[in-house]
Amino acid sequence: MSDQRVVRPAPISGFPEWTPRVRSVEQHWLDHIRAGFESFGFASVETPSVESLDVLTAKGETSQEVYTLHRLQADPKDDSDARLGLHFDLTVPFARYVAQHFNELTFPFKRYQMQRVWRGERPQEGRSREFTQCDIDVINVDSVPLHFDAELPRIVHRVLSGLDLPAWTLNVNNRKVLQGFYEGLGVEDPVAVIRAVDKLHKIGDDGVREILTGGGLTAGQADACLALARVRGTGAEVPGRVRALGVSSPLLEEGLEELAFVLDDLADLPEGAVVADLSIARGLDYYTGTVYEASFDDDPGYGSICAGGRYEDLAGQFIRRRLPGVGISIGLTRIFAKLVAEGRIQGGRICPTDVMVVVPAAERRREALAVGELLRSRGFNTEVFHSAAKVGKQIQYASKKGIPFVWFPPFGEDGGHEVKDMGSGEQAAADPSTWSPGDRTE
Amino acid sequence: MSDQRVVRPAPISGFPEWTPRVRSVEQHWLDHIRAGFESFGFASVETPSVESLDVLTAKGETSQEVYTLHRLQADPKDDSDARLGLHFDLTVPFARYVAQHFNELTFPFKRYQMQRVWRGERPQEGRSREFTQCDIDVINVDSVPLHFDAELPRIVHRVLSGLDLPAWTLNVNNRKVLQGFYEGLGVEDPVAVIRAVDKLHKIGDDGVREILTGGGLTAGQADACLALARVRGTGAEVPGRVRALGVSSPLLEEGLEELAFVLDDLADLPEGAVVADLSIARGLDYYTGTVYEASFDDDPGYGSICAGGRYEDLAGQFIRRRLPGVGISIGLTRIFAKLVAEGRIQGGRICPTDVMVVVPAAERRREALAVGELLRSRGFNTEVFHSAAKVGKQIQYASKKGIPFVWFPPFGEDGGHEVKDMGSGEQAAADPSTWSPGDRTE
Repeated sequence: MSDQRVVRPAPISGFPEWTPRVRSVEQHWLDHIRAGFESFGFASVETPSVESLDVLTAKGETSQEVYTLHRLQADPKDDSDARLGLHFDLTVPFARYVAQHFNELTFPFKRYQMQRVWRGERPQEGRSREFTQCDIDVINVDSVPLHFDAELPRIVHRVLSGLDLPAWTLNVNNRKVLQGFYEGLGVEDPVAVIRAVDKLHKIGDDGVREILTGGGLTAGQADACLALARVRGTGAEVPGRVRALGVSSPLLEEGLEELAFVLDDLADLPEGAVVADLSIARGLDYYTGTVYEASFDDDPGYGSICAGGRYEDLAGQFIRRRLPGVGISIGLTRIFAKLVAEGRIQGGRICPTDVMVVVPAAERRREALAVGELLRSRGFNTEVFHSAAKVGKQIQYASKKGIPFVWFPPFGEDGGHEVKDMGSGEQAAADPSTWSPGDRTE
Repeated sequence: MSDQRVVRPAPISGFPEWTPRVRSVEQHWLDHIRAGFESFGFASVETPSVESLDVLTAKGETSQEVYTLHRLQADPKDDSDARLGLHFDLTVPFARYVAQHFNELTFPFKRYQMQRVWRGERPQEGRSREFTQCDIDVINVDSVPLHFDAELPRIVHRVLSGLDLPAWTLNVNNRKVLQGFYEGLGVEDPVAVIRAVDKLHKIGDDGVREILTGGGLTAGQADACLALARVRGTGAEVPGRVRALGVSSPLLEEGLEELAFVLDDLADLPEGAVVADLSIARGLDYYTGTVYEASFDDDPGYGSICAGGRYEDLAGQFIRRRLPGVGISIGLTRIFAKLVAEGRIQGGRICPTDVMVVVPAAERRREALAVGELLRSRGFNTEVFHSAAKVGKQIQYASKKGIPFVWFPPFGEDGGHEVKDMGSGEQAAADPSTWSPGDRTE
């Protein structure tokens, strides 16, 4: 034990970290999400954690949240690193990636990206400063088929349904429906209405009505906007219910047809898996058609756990090609951290070991190692105990680590291999070259 | 197309990024390494990308390489983020993790950690500023069985042998052998000799001899040190060859016994997989027993691709418990980036799709989607083409993306499903609920 000063380690607010048992569940989630993305043919992309500040601030909006990098002992005259910042989402890096590698990519380009992102904001409930997002986007030159607007909710449904989450709903809408409806109503600034309606779940009908009439809408117009926002449904009846509100415009009709296409395409999913909700606006994002937003049914105030939509041009700030796309982002850490905090993450294992091989005596080490290699080659995660300690102590270690099986190489000259099922306590003869966990004692 | 300024995207020196085809190989490597670590029962740990500067500089040595974080638009009076830096390796975060979660861990604790690390150094060949390391360590309270000193090279052998690398060698040595030998020679400052011998591969025998005699060693002592460094072998003869140099000390004998134990334990590995090389010192690291270092046989000057060793106390700066351990780190990006640069990374796929389902006509979309879901449920990564374009165009897309199979739902009323093997060009009848890629045309 040294005399040096002890730096007391402490968690850093906003930077989550898990014990091995919880981490094993997170790892399972990541594997599951990745497999879901790949099952639809999306290719993996990773980008560096940093971008130049020119890239990060090309759109100008979120610059206050960027962490910039500086070398601890940099020469004050050397500003070579001063233009680097950690990415705050995966969309900006992806836009830069597509522009930079344009000639090396095959379009339509379907990519997934699962990485940490950083935001230098004050930490608060559900808001980390470092967190993992899982994004899928499809981009293409000049136009993107509507097929993908329906494929993305299908993928999210498949992926999130396979995790043990509290009830959630994936809502879908179309910005053309909103904008076309407001235009048909004779509203002068449809975007202002979209922004107001986006606040509906926070400030309620009266709050939104107040903003709208304060902005110059008549009471009748405001009521019509609120009536549209109340339309919610899962199938072919949705466009009819909107049309029944008696407003029409070419853009509205285009939006309703797109929305109908998406709903129709997803008709094979379980009832209620994807719901058209005409109050969803994603007002602060630059979406131009389909928009998505998912939240927990029992805690909508926690905010979106998954969001996205269709945009007219992904990378206009980086390349003089029009690259429209549609994408969706799953807020992995946002979902996972909430479940951890609520004690809902269970079933994780302390270690991935399937079988622990007992070392009967120091001179039998090689034999135990060989059993370990054999079991490993057959696909079992296998530890060989680290010393020739008393057998009871070896079994105790396996028990503490939650290792499901303990293997005993032959103890006497006439003995054979045996395996103990730590769950049932059963112990039985077994052959390391054929055994499997399903085998039963005879 | 907008009129906005275009920010020309460019690579940032030292921050590698791969096209999807290369990324698919990197992902395969990561999966393979992880599976290898888990097959020996090591548990996954991830830590935040940042640590407090107190933690990062607790040992004081590498502080010049740390990237610190600052918020782009922080209030100058607010220094709440000023004490955060990106981790420069995975050992310091792991030490902090073990100290912080000490009561939640089960010892001996075997963990693997595969994460990006950052160093704010000048980029040069083989030195990235952001790179991925794959570390395994075993730590325990008070003492760590020698078993693990042998297990780690076994794991590295298993992991690296499964990747398609140019020839490499994992060298092993023991600091007690070096220190004990120098003590036995009567050298006053054995650590200075270790540091000098560590330069052997760069400056040669004459350079090292000059440093040693300049540091007060006699010519005979210097020659003995160089003779020790020339000992290299794979088995039980190694300790004998050292003893034949005629130097002895208790520490030397202890080191030789440990080295012999490790070599004996690995005797079942292929000849030459692990080689005792008594010139390996890892001079700048604080190892106290076994040390490891691997490099490419045809390019030793590229430096170590894998390194580690045994340390007396992992987390003494964070907790008043003695936590010795043994660990090894695989420089994934170091290896991978070299192979990419040399054009040796081949066989990667543009996308993970196994089968693309053709959409014969717009009104047959649902049918194609159902085939897609069925194939996906059977474990095939499946894309449904994104429009009812001409069949030739759909096949062309599959060809460009390197998708191995194209599926045709029935075209006429009497027709059946068919599948085309894009490699052989063969097309044959197939049932989506039973087909597998091994099926042959009848």
